[in-house]
Amino acid sequence: MMNATDFDPDIRRVAHLMADAARQVILPYFRSLDLQADNKLGTGFDPVTEADRAAERAMRDILAAERPADGILGEEYGAQPGTSGLTWVLDPIDGTRGFLSGTPTWGVLIAVSDISGPFYGIIDQPYIGERFEGAPDGALMVGPHGSRLLQTRAARDLRQAIVFTTFPEVGSSDEAKAFRAVASQALLTRYGMDCYAYALVAAGQVDLVIEAGLNAYDIQAPIAVIQAAGGIVTDWQGNAVHEGGRALAAANREIHAQALAILSAY
Amino acid sequence: MMNATDFDPDIRRVAHLMADAARQVILPYFRSLDLQADNKLGTGFDPVTEADRAAERAMRDILAAERPADGILGEEYGAQPGTSGLTWVLDPIDGTRGFLSGTPTWGVLIAVSDISGPFYGIIDQPYIGERFEGAPDGALMVGPHGSRLLQTRAARDLRQAIVFTTFPEVGSSDEAKAFRAVASQALLTRYGMDCYAYALVAAGQVDLVIEAGLNAYDIQAPIAVIQAAGGIVTDWQGNAVHEGGRALAAANREIHAQALAILSAY
Repeated sequence: MMNATDFDPDIRRVAHLMADAARQVILPYFRSLDLQADNKLGTGFDPVTEADRAAERAMRDILAAERPADGILGEEYGAQPGTSGLTWVLDPIDGTRGFLSGTPTWGVLIAVSDISGPFYGIIDQPYIGERFEGAPDGALMVGPHGSRLLQTRAARDLRQAIVFTTFPEVGSSDEAKAFRAVASQALLTRYGMDCYAYALVAAGQVDLVIEAGLNAYDIQAPIAVIQAAGGIVTDWQGNAVHEGGRALAAANREIHAQALAILSAY
Repeated sequence: MMNATDFDPDIRRVAHLMADAARQVILPYFRSLDLQADNKLGTGFDPVTEADRAAERAMRDILAAERPADGILGEEYGAQPGTSGLTWVLDPIDGTRGFLSGTPTWGVLIAVSDISGPFYGIIDQPYIGERFEGAPDGALMVGPHGSRLLQTRAARDLRQAIVFTTFPEVGSSDEAKAFRAVASQALLTRYGMDCYAYALVAAGQVDLVIEAGLNAYDIQAPIAVIQAAGGIVTDWQGNAVHEGGRALAAANREIHAQALAILSAY
């Protein structure tokens, strides 16, 4: 991870501008009665809303003006190479199914990566007005009842742990089995939170989030926020996961090791 | 249902006093790092927090001062008979598992019943600052971005519907099968919202919520809010469910009939 002294504060300034712009663009669409969902894949159900696209355009416009040398990877408009060695990785609405259902657990994801992966990230929940930020100089949440430093939970046994995933099918049938092998040993398993579950790991509320089938833009902001708060995010073999795939987000090294011992068999 | 002209506005005044008091009592406990969870049942995991108890005491204190002739049924402190023919039905924190996990989807439930069931209800989410109210004179949501009248969704086929339940096991294995028989025909199934899912039915975001194993205090406020917004809540046979059991909450008569045709076979 990048040292705090090497961190350019201009990244923070621009990231907050982008998150503010995304909030403003998206909120009028949230719970609007004429929301139209397209079907991106043709098969299955992967809604993309006009809000999604408009928010990514707003964020890209800010980058074009403020940091034109940086690259961009966005869910809606793909990759745009840069010359600075930095890439902004954007998911304007992570959790579009939750968004369509009106739940306040979707989020705007913004990450900044160098060659070794994401070192800065924001998970923003516009409706609640909550922003979780992880940076080389620390991790902070600002919400409707004030701000607090983010710190993941202390180590505890898996039998005392809280485990999240977004939907019980998880992914393939093997991936679902792997998840259940961990979850069946945990104190409590919960579903349905999308990126908000990762924010709760950073906030010290949740021990583990286990998901599969992720894209880079789904996981880079969670990685940066959780690492800055003291946690660990890898794939199910313990390797880097910032290119996407199967993610294991853990509050600490001990619970990460316990979950990895189970997941790595799948 | 009670006519709007028979509705005593003092009920609204006192209900909002109670919801305000519960917010104030509960919020300092939410996401506090030293939260202690008791195990109410001795077996299984049914956490009760000090917040739960303190909030119900605060609400009962208001009723003792403001409406001493009304009866009370509360999750934490049981039944207290009244002489007015009205009963306040209270669940200070519905969704204690969500509360312990830090998700903003638990709620304070307040209902007022007469002999035919609940005719007034509040679903309050203190952290977001959202209050969903259903009364004989209408249904309203007040939230962080303003207020709006609540109106359930228009009729659509089950294949276009959004279905919620809190956890995929639902209840018994037959109850889980019944839920899946409906959900497998729906457009989208989501989990993990506790009472917030019922609020989303009232808000026109969700078509169906299907749950089992409910107590009267879990379902009376959702019934009142959803009915006031144009929806229907019954058990899985189409009968009244305000005493608890298996609940089917529906946005309209058509989707209710479609789901009931499936569920009533179980």
